[in-house]
Amino acid sequence: MKRKVVISVIGGHDINDKVEKLAHNIGEIIAKVGCVLVCGGLYGSMEATARGCKQAGGTTIGLIPGKDKRDANPYIDIVIATTIGYARNAMVACSGDIIIALPGSHGTLSEICYGFVYEKPIIDLGRWKRPGMIKVKNLKELESKLRDLIKTIESK
Amino acid sequence: MKRKVVISVIGGHDINDKVEKLAHNIGEIIAKVGCVLVCGGLYGSMEATARGCKQAGGTTIGLIPGKDKRDANPYIDIVIATTIGYARNAMVACSGDIIIALPGSHGTLSEICYGFVYEKPIIDLGRWKRPGMIKVKNLKELESKLRDLIKTIESK
Amino acid sequence: MKRKVVISVIGGHDINDKVEKLAHNIGEIIAKVGCVLVCGGLYGSMEATARGCKQAGGTTIGLIPGKDKRDANPYIDIVIATTIGYARNAMVACSGDIIIALPGSHGTLSEICYGFVYEKPIIDLGRWKRPGMIKVKNLKELESKLRDLIKTIESK
Amino acid sequence: MKRKVVISVIGGHDINDKVEKLAHNIGEIIAKVGCVLVCGGLYGSMEATARGCKQAGGTTIGLIPGKDKRDANPYIDIVIATTIGYARNAMVACSGDIIIALPGSHGTLSEICYGFVYEKPIIDLGRWKRPGMIKVKNLKELESKLRDLIKTIESK
Repeated sequence: MKRKVVISVIGGHDINDKVEKLAHNIGEIIAKVGCVLVCGGLYGSMEATARGCKQAGGTTIGLIPGKDKRDANPYIDIVIATTIGYARNAMVACSGDIIIALPGSHGTLSEICYGFVYEKPIIDLGRWKRPGMIKVKNLKELESKLRDLIKTIESK
Repeated sequence: MKRKVVISVIGGHDINDKVEKLAHNIGEIIAKVGCVLVCGGLYGSMEATARGCKQAGGTTIGLIPGKDKRDANPYIDIVIATTIGYARNAMVACSGDIIIALPGSHGTLSEICYGFVYEKPIIDLGRWKRPGMIKVKNLKELESKLRDLIKTIESK
Repeated sequence: MKRKVVISVIGGHDINDKVEKLAHNIGEIIAKVGCVLVCGGLYGSMEATARGCKQAGGTTIGLIPGKDKRDANPYIDIVIATTIGYARNAMVACSGDIIIALPGSHGTLSEICYGFVYEKPIIDLGRWKRPGMIKVKNLKELESKLRDLIKTIESK
Repeated sequence: MKRKVVISVIGGHDINDKVEKLAHNIGEIIAKVGCVLVCGGLYGSMEATARGCKQAGGTTIGLIPGKDKRDANPYIDIVIATTIGYARNAMVACSGDIIIALPGSHGTLSEICYGFVYEKPIIDLGRWKRPGMIKVKNLKELESKLRDLIKTIESK
């Protein structure tokens, strides 16, 4: 009856091959550590992460800005049609017990800001380098860091 | 790779034993027909439906109004902390491919209204009797109606 | 340094001549009693009320659902681009110290519901006849009722 | 019948005397150039700007996060009770035809981000130094820049 630990992954629409691969791998790790992925539900890094998570057997939730579920990328299991536009960035951040930040633009940065406002652990995989974000060197370190954070969250 | 059909159940906090049993049974049926339950995540009929769904092996999502996940009832698997208060009623309605309305007060009626605004099928199990809602006589008819609606939704 | 008493007027897009005249007259009364008009900023009764209020020298605020201020009707002085779609109905209701309900459909009813949730006085000028709404027989009685309510609100 | 040009001022709660004076002066300029002030409605720089604007005869609107209008600072003429928490930052940004950014923390930065998302001119008076923001050296240059922007906005 325990509720699931949610990892919110935030990042941009326009991504290069390297970031797409990184996003996919992060999705796989989220499935591997037994968490649920929450993201904005759309394209670019959101799609790549959802694809990685889903293909590794995980659960993916997309908080899309609009009302039409068909806006979601095809790797989203459960679409929440928030209807509130980009104001939904607040809830992408607040719904994560942990946030992973990939490279992105203003939208992604707004989500990082909300992560701080709601006092979430935010892992920097996008060279954001903002004070207070958690650094990890590689995917192995990411997985290890996630397992530590999950243990702490589940013990609360 | 197909996305899950979501059933949003809406209803009040203060419920009697009869409604609690009804809500629990509806939750079981949602699990049985293979859908995901979305609800407001709090107490009363939201808790009873989530308990029924979860105990029957289903997945339960709670769109809570606030930012603190501990506000959710214990039968919610995945808590979305919407942070937007009762304005989240719009997204409870819009996230359902199907809405089931139990007895409730003004909050529930606002969700029924949003269901109409977003053109959702709304099943009346709360004696709302508003034109355009779908009537079912009993739980057997509910299950049958849900299976019909799910087939239509999945074929789109 | 006293803040202004806000009257939120809610009502539908599709209105007949009679309701348009009523809405216009209500707008005039809002200006006359020295209040600010808040509405959804769009067309139908929102436009007619704003026109009445503005032509009588009042101030009109439109809480539009989208991001483009040009969506507002031409009688809105100050456009708040809420960006959150119809979830903004919650804030149309909550921003009114007093709510006046004209005829309308599901959207208007959702705003009446939020009015009850946020415990606002709601004056029924749309034959809603819901328990707890305030009845007035004509515009003279409306003005008198508004003056009473304003006095109470300002003394708080 | 022309709608008012809105200037949204964003900035932090915790401010020193220097920023308080700056905020007050900016409020005065907003009144002087004939615009309406929109802000978050609370304390710190929001209060100082509203005080400056109000004392110079301007109109001040506060988009507060909660539902209780008494949360607003005493220099707000018209309180919009958004009810949607910090997700309201999206609408503070989007409601400004022009945004002025004072020093602040994560909340303010989220509003700057939304300013970029909604393609607003953003004047940097908080040493944010983000690419795309408009620099002004002093209050005289601010006033001149505002007059230019207002002319462009009104001609659209």
